[in-house]
Amino acid sequence: MKTVEDLFAGARAGRMADIARLVSIVENEEAQCADVMRAAHLQAGRATKLGVTGPPGAGKSTLVSVLTSAYRRKVPRVAVVAVDPSSPWSGGAILGDRIRMRDSYLDAGVFIRSMSNRGQSGGLARATRRVVNVLDAVGFDVILVETVGIGQQEIDVASVVDTVCLLTIPGAGDDIQAIKAGVIEIADILVVNKSDRPGAEEVVLDLMQMLKLGMPRNDWRVPVIKTSAAGGTGIEELMDAVNEHRDWAARGGEAQRRNADAMRAEIHALLREQVLRDLAARLDAREVDALVNLVVARELDPYAAVEQLLGR
Amino acid sequence: MKTVEDLFAGARAGRMADIARLVSIVENEEAQCADVMRAAHLQAGRATKLGVTGPPGAGKSTLVSVLTSAYRRKVPRVAVVAVDPSSPWSGGAILGDRIRMRDSYLDAGVFIRSMSNRGQSGGLARATRRVVNVLDAVGFDVILVETVGIGQQEIDVASVVDTVCLLTIPGAGDDIQAIKAGVIEIADILVVNKSDRPGAEEVVLDLMQMLKLGMPRNDWRVPVIKTSAAGGTGIEELMDAVNEHRDWAARGGEAQRRNADAMRAEIHALLREQVLRDLAARLDAREVDALVNLVVARELDPYAAVEQLLGR
Repeated sequence: MKTVEDLFAGARAGRMADIARLVSIVENEEAQCADVMRAAHLQAGRATKLGVTGPPGAGKSTLVSVLTSAYRRKVPRVAVVAVDPSSPWSGGAILGDRIRMRDSYLDAGVFIRSMSNRGQSGGLARATRRVVNVLDAVGFDVILVETVGIGQQEIDVASVVDTVCLLTIPGAGDDIQAIKAGVIEIADILVVNKSDRPGAEEVVLDLMQMLKLGMPRNDWRVPVIKTSAAGGTGIEELMDAVNEHRDWAARGGEAQRRNADAMRAEIHALLREQVLRDLAARLDAREVDALVNLVVARELDPYAAVEQLLGR
Repeated sequence: MKTVEDLFAGARAGRMADIARLVSIVENEEAQCADVMRAAHLQAGRATKLGVTGPPGAGKSTLVSVLTSAYRRKVPRVAVVAVDPSSPWSGGAILGDRIRMRDSYLDAGVFIRSMSNRGQSGGLARATRRVVNVLDAVGFDVILVETVGIGQQEIDVASVVDTVCLLTIPGAGDDIQAIKAGVIEIADILVVNKSDRPGAEEVVLDLMQMLKLGMPRNDWRVPVIKTSAAGGTGIEELMDAVNEHRDWAARGGEAQRRNADAMRAEIHALLREQVLRDLAARLDAREVDALVNLVVARELDPYAAVEQLLGR
């Protein structure tokens, strides 16, 4: 079996099997997970991490696919992490008409991973963060994270990436209402995709109105960008906006703040896991059984049993 | 402010305000929650605790209402805990045609509480258990717990009560499929409600067939009972079955086993809460901040930070 060092060396050299192995270790929390994450942490921090989120049908996968090709013309290595279980990245649509996605699949500079959408929302966001960190550490220049839905998952993914693009489309009146309900606050860039459809201008004006009414989180002016992922328009403008946001975040300390918040949350999560593991290790099964029996007999209450088990 | 002892004395004497106060303390985990639970634990264990579960529309609330009146003819005090947020117990339907529910509301021997369906499934089941324990401790003879839906919540509620009645109705083909999928395993008694409707016999035969095919958990023969809660038929037979199950569970040790499993789970949950509280108390905010900064600067990895915070 390859050591973690071997896997990192292979992954940095572009060996897909080694990248996939490292990603699986941290996605599934296999035995070597902590070793991989420790090594990854000290080497990561260079990649551009971009989130693409929005309701089903907004064209996220197509946009991610177009962005992948466009970034690949500028940098050697691009990774796609699809948190959306219904994403065509997971397989089905590839043999269909999604030519660009097929191109990405055949490109040796592109790594694609579809995360299994299991566990709780918080658990999935942490697993996504681990995968993104590993991809960052092994040298991917750009990492695109696609998530579906409107809600907690979108808010969680914001802490994994540097820049969040929130997609909407013309004619999706209800989606805009849903966006209003709070998700708009996590967007660094608003994208009106499928903007060749009628009603695109109205959506742009609606979004700009919403941005004016909303409380700005900071001095970043959220741009509203029209794209047509399928038609290939607006992509350069979107990539420019991503760069501008990245520069702004680095300049004003926002990137540092987001990173610190994420690291603090991760440290607390690891602390909780560790103290619960310590607890499990120090409990004497026979003592627990004896106390459970006393509690069942109502000679002891559960709180007193806990005090006794913790030795106070 | 009344002490916990005052509240228990008032609640045992039947003062509704004191019962409601104790229930709120443990439902919402207010400051006195542990004190109330410690006192309750040593006094509980006498009530008949009956779960009524099944899909929406099966007539759970009406059956619970009829059972409440029927039990009240035998015992002085009956409590209803509705975990179903859409249950008419929560308010709306009382002014309508639910005469029996109104009767229960006007009966001084009946206490009714509709639990807010908040928190995670596990959290709700634990809160329900606390409420049921308090009602048991203050002297309710019968406690009826109504839960909605098909899934984890039904499985969780099984650990709160002594006997689980699973409702179905004629013509609910899909529900029976859903029951097949695993929930039938938690039923101690199967009830075909609205059995005056066409197709009742077929449902009974289907359920008996399913029981024959299934793996018995133990030597309890799950009965299938036809009721019409609205028409008042089958209620005595159902109550007889509940008694038989209770006697069987006490005789063969099943009640003891369920209780031990529940107490073990509660002790482990309290242990986890306590070690996490201890962790929070012992963390030095400035030390955490300093380590977060080192981690953000990638001079330290999060795992090493955790080791340092835990002093190893």
